[in-house]
Amino acid sequence: MTQIIKDHNYISLQIKKKNSMLCVGLDPDLSKLEDRFLNTSTPLQSFCTEIINATHDLAIAYKLNVAFFESFGPKGWEQLAEVVHSIPNDCLIILDAKRADIGNTSAQYARYYFEDLKVDAVTLHPYMGLDSIAPFLSYANKWSVVLALTSNEGSNDIEQKRLDSGIKVYEHILELYSKNYNSNQIMFVCGATHPEEFKSIRKIVPDHFLLVPGIGAQGGNLKSVIENGANASGGLLINVSRAISYPSGNGNYTSLVRKAAEFYQQEMSLFL
Amino acid sequence: MTQIIKDHNYISLQIKKKNSMLCVGLDPDLSKLEDRFLNTSTPLQSFCTEIINATHDLAIAYKLNVAFFESFGPKGWEQLAEVVHSIPNDCLIILDAKRADIGNTSAQYARYYFEDLKVDAVTLHPYMGLDSIAPFLSYANKWSVVLALTSNEGSNDIEQKRLDSGIKVYEHILELYSKNYNSNQIMFVCGATHPEEFKSIRKIVPDHFLLVPGIGAQGGNLKSVIENGANASGGLLINVSRAISYPSGNGNYTSLVRKAAEFYQQEMSLFL
Repeated sequence: MTQIIKDHNYISLQIKKKNSMLCVGLDPDLSKLEDRFLNTSTPLQSFCTEIINATHDLAIAYKLNVAFFESFGPKGWEQLAEVVHSIPNDCLIILDAKRADIGNTSAQYARYYFEDLKVDAVTLHPYMGLDSIAPFLSYANKWSVVLALTSNEGSNDIEQKRLDSGIKVYEHILELYSKNYNSNQIMFVCGATHPEEFKSIRKIVPDHFLLVPGIGAQGGNLKSVIENGANASGGLLINVSRAISYPSGNGNYTSLVRKAAEFYQQEMSLFL
Repeated sequence: MTQIIKDHNYISLQIKKKNSMLCVGLDPDLSKLEDRFLNTSTPLQSFCTEIINATHDLAIAYKLNVAFFESFGPKGWEQLAEVVHSIPNDCLIILDAKRADIGNTSAQYARYYFEDLKVDAVTLHPYMGLDSIAPFLSYANKWSVVLALTSNEGSNDIEQKRLDSGIKVYEHILELYSKNYNSNQIMFVCGATHPEEFKSIRKIVPDHFLLVPGIGAQGGNLKSVIENGANASGGLLINVSRAISYPSGNGNYTSLVRKAAEFYQQEMSLFL
């Protein structure tokens, strides 16, 4: 298999080719799964693989929510590795791990994710500063996805506080990390629940990709996110997790997943 | 086995009884292990168990650095669970995981750590705000250990920036989280590499326990940390990782580990 370098340019081309900015979030929650998944020895894996098979021509990326695997201990991690391997080579694989620690510790995480699991990207907490994410950035052609403005209520508690320099904490994160790492190394998480902030975000980071959670179950506004956040290379990976994995409506589960993914891809294509 | 409630009062009593504030950090780094560990099928576990056996009468707590287990995938997590089970019941078990995510995701982590692994405490990133750690706090008699001022250089990048209200970001974290959660639910990470900050930290959180990394390999000053940071109930869990697990000097490894742990316990007892 030819090794594809999934750099900025590659992702941008995929967005144009698939006419989509869709990132499908994989959060396998046993309490919501059909019996036919629960009756296998690897329910998390069976569930995720079915979603991937039904959506990969519409998806630019998959985001694996580590907590939903880690919560099953070693068996969960085994299934996570299998899910990673089942993702087609043209899609970006984002490990939503939200890690970061002092250098020698971050290096352990980075080695496992990038060398063993071979994911393309990992989400990271910015709080401990530049040296806490440097070990992830030392891998060429791998992405660090740094939390800036998250989609939850708690984003008011620290992220949106104003520094004495006049900018908000999350804007400082955008400035600091983008000054040190270019748009081929780093992306930022910016939640769709704050569409009014995307204009000022784009003033600080015009070129960087933004990973956007909060569409679907969390109620974010797709139209205004794209209008305010898209750029010439696309610039957005818009994540939908629960609204695709646990679709409403009656009928065959796989068809419902497909329909939900098509709905979001088509909505995105309207504004692209 | 009687279930011990390891609350504020219990930890305080252990500090007095053992005349120690020592938290032994377990960061099993294969590149530094003796062959006799590497030659077993569970090197991480054999190594950590030997350190625990050599130090538990001197230690108030053990801090397991998850990255050093996670980096070995499912086999690493299996060994982590065994190490947790091997820690004597009178010691606090801190999982140094540095997690935090939106509520339904944090709940997955919390369930696994507190219900399955049965650790007593977990370290958490504060960046995403109160609702991101709430699921951990919903467990009675379990501890959330929130990062405030970390020991690394990068602590200057965000943690030490000043807000427009006049206080630093990390001081805001201390205020916000301590206002919402009392000293029986939450502790804070404050690095020994900032001894001059401990006086102002104690003005904000006079009663909360502080988990203090940065002694030993990272060069923090034990004396000034205790002078400025200790309170009537002890108030400090001082972590030493590499200086105990990878002791300098010649001789039997287990004896060197024991001597290093005794050295730190005795240093601490001088200032208690």
